[in-house]
Amino acid sequence: MSELESLTAAYQNLKARNQNIDMTRGKPSAAQLDLAAGMFDLVHSDDCKGEDGTDYRNYGILAGIPEARKLFARLMETAPDRVIVGGNGSLAMMYDALAGAVTFGVPGGDGPWNGAKFLCPVPGYDRHFAICERLGIEMLPVEMLDDGPDMDAVEAMVAEDASIKGIWCVPKYSNPTGAIYSDLTVDRLAAMKCAAPDFRIIWDNAYVVHHLTGEIATVKNIQKAAEAAGNADRILTFVSTSKISLAGAGVAAMSASEANVKDALERMFFATIGPDKINQLRHVRFFKDQAGIEAHMKKHAEIIAPKFAVVEEALSKAFAGTDLATWTKPEGGYFVSVDLTDGCAAETVKLCAEAGVKLTASGACFPYGKDPRDRNIRLAPTMPTPDELERAMEVFCTTAKMVCLKNKAG
Amino acid sequence: MSELESLTAAYQNLKARNQNIDMTRGKPSAAQLDLAAGMFDLVHSDDCKGEDGTDYRNYGILAGIPEARKLFARLMETAPDRVIVGGNGSLAMMYDALAGAVTFGVPGGDGPWNGAKFLCPVPGYDRHFAICERLGIEMLPVEMLDDGPDMDAVEAMVAEDASIKGIWCVPKYSNPTGAIYSDLTVDRLAAMKCAAPDFRIIWDNAYVVHHLTGEIATVKNIQKAAEAAGNADRILTFVSTSKISLAGAGVAAMSASEANVKDALERMFFATIGPDKINQLRHVRFFKDQAGIEAHMKKHAEIIAPKFAVVEEALSKAFAGTDLATWTKPEGGYFVSVDLTDGCAAETVKLCAEAGVKLTASGACFPYGKDPRDRNIRLAPTMPTPDELERAMEVFCTTAKMVCLKNKAG
Repeated sequence: MSELESLTAAYQNLKARNQNIDMTRGKPSAAQLDLAAGMFDLVHSDDCKGEDGTDYRNYGILAGIPEARKLFARLMETAPDRVIVGGNGSLAMMYDALAGAVTFGVPGGDGPWNGAKFLCPVPGYDRHFAICERLGIEMLPVEMLDDGPDMDAVEAMVAEDASIKGIWCVPKYSNPTGAIYSDLTVDRLAAMKCAAPDFRIIWDNAYVVHHLTGEIATVKNIQKAAEAAGNADRILTFVSTSKISLAGAGVAAMSASEANVKDALERMFFATIGPDKINQLRHVRFFKDQAGIEAHMKKHAEIIAPKFAVVEEALSKAFAGTDLATWTKPEGGYFVSVDLTDGCAAETVKLCAEAGVKLTASGACFPYGKDPRDRNIRLAPTMPTPDELERAMEVFCTTAKMVCLKNKAG
Repeated sequence: MSELESLTAAYQNLKARNQNIDMTRGKPSAAQLDLAAGMFDLVHSDDCKGEDGTDYRNYGILAGIPEARKLFARLMETAPDRVIVGGNGSLAMMYDALAGAVTFGVPGGDGPWNGAKFLCPVPGYDRHFAICERLGIEMLPVEMLDDGPDMDAVEAMVAEDASIKGIWCVPKYSNPTGAIYSDLTVDRLAAMKCAAPDFRIIWDNAYVVHHLTGEIATVKNIQKAAEAAGNADRILTFVSTSKISLAGAGVAAMSASEANVKDALERMFFATIGPDKINQLRHVRFFKDQAGIEAHMKKHAEIIAPKFAVVEEALSKAFAGTDLATWTKPEGGYFVSVDLTDGCAAETVKLCAEAGVKLTASGACFPYGKDPRDRNIRLAPTMPTPDELERAMEVFCTTAKMVCLKNKAG
């Protein structure tokens, strides 16, 4: 029996198991959510006042409570007055920033972003790309390298085309490759000459403290680099506690230059009376300070690092020494990015689903959902239990190898 | 000494007291917020699952948790699948609905709302008008009568001008007059012939259960009336618990036709991963059902009805039998609307502020902040303590009467 024949037989056996495992999204597991136990018990209705006596149960405080702005300022390496603390999701703040740019424009620009284009390092985060697609912002892919986007390409494009208004960046443990932006990449992004005077870098620092190993990556402060280069308004930085405290009941924040914070608050004034300050207070009391956040993240790593090890082991066992697949070995974040033989991703995802393992849709990490080489698959190991994950990886590796070998055989 | 002279002397005395009382906004008092004591203690991290076992701490569930949709469906007199339960403010949902209409259009229309106009019953809610102003929607005032907007004027305008895309309505205990829409007004709004095929009634039912007296007003179900008239997609209804549970940490909801709910969810998909479901769960557990909400609102009425009585008594004492002022006697809601002699509102608000009583800016209840007769002032009695309110009303009545008499004297 050839390897392809034995893989095909193995696949049929796995399919007969009728499994149902979901690896589509980067969701924390129940065990991770349990780490925030106690969060809900820290604020009571007789204990809802801020440091200055303000009753946080009432309306107002558009920029978030001062205690939370302070906590996030440390996390975001900036000053509290440069931070806006919002609701339960940073995606909403990013959408609002870009929808605002399209409708009203941004500081330094000359009005609404009509016919805007955005650079999209690929593979990247599907929800970023979905925002652009929805808002009619044309997406231009650039290659993601190990130390950030291909800066030669980025610099050439932004220097020439004034309709290129921005770029999506996940600087640390990038989604999905786990890439960490080098100091040089940060400096080049901060200082590059842009034809658009209102160019914006959406710095989605989603995995700022989401380390998997003892190797804690640091990324150079791009806001400071941009200020030094005279481009203070270029950067919009976002974080959230969705993968620190609770995915659905966390707190998100934006930081930026004085002009950008003012612009965002002006926009927000029309759209909201203020964020849920009580949930912000819960977070401040739970984490207390940056050390509290970092200690908490070590507990996350203890839960999820073994899952990434399962993925690495399974991929190595199946593909090491072959020319069928390459994959990332992230030191943080939520994903492993796999590149199969060209033309094999969609078929693999489809056959995995038929065998009961749902993966992120192939192409999802590319603008308009189209992977030009049909080779990239994003694996999200955090949500399944370790046992489910082992079984899911067996299905994935068997299926992917079968598809690649079949492809090779023509 | 003339009445004007004695009022002027009284004003100077009041000014010398150096008071500092804020009546600018319709905020609940601390005593009202205390009614929700216990709300924060009803959900714990080991008890965060929905009826179907879903872990509400995690991502997702764009339309809100089923339990909350059911609770709001009863409050909004519709079916749970016609309800979207969101974050902590209905203003955000209204902004999103109109920003979506301007950027993308709505079901039944032919694309983005360019050059749209909106009917604004006046006096009305300043934050409604602010949304229009921000989004470039031209505002056309129509007179607010005791039973809703002047429908003869409304019908004539919407029949003729296809660029009139909607109208703001607060159907019960309207902000600020306390008007209650009659069945006839509801039927006319639901059935009127609109030149714009995508006309929308923003039905901001902000005070749906906010009764001040035993007289509980009911307003005819406009969604059903619109469906009967073949205009199901015309209505977008909003409520929130901001003035039921907690002003800053409540839960808001929208209900509408199937097509409008689908449209809103499609729009929301790009802007958020989902609402804070834990806070929704807190509300479901706290109120349990409609009877729980209604019982809770009686406690609010016990706190705020005496404050409205203070306002009424002060206004009667100062102005009954004069031709200087008329005012509303609301059976619910958060405001008393006062019409002074033409040309006297701005001066009264200014002089009250100088005497330490901050009122809502004059003109705030009109589009672009411009009261053409400069006569209307919105009083918001809920936030001050009863003692503060008495002192504030002394300042207001003294000042207003002084200004009106001075005006009369030429």
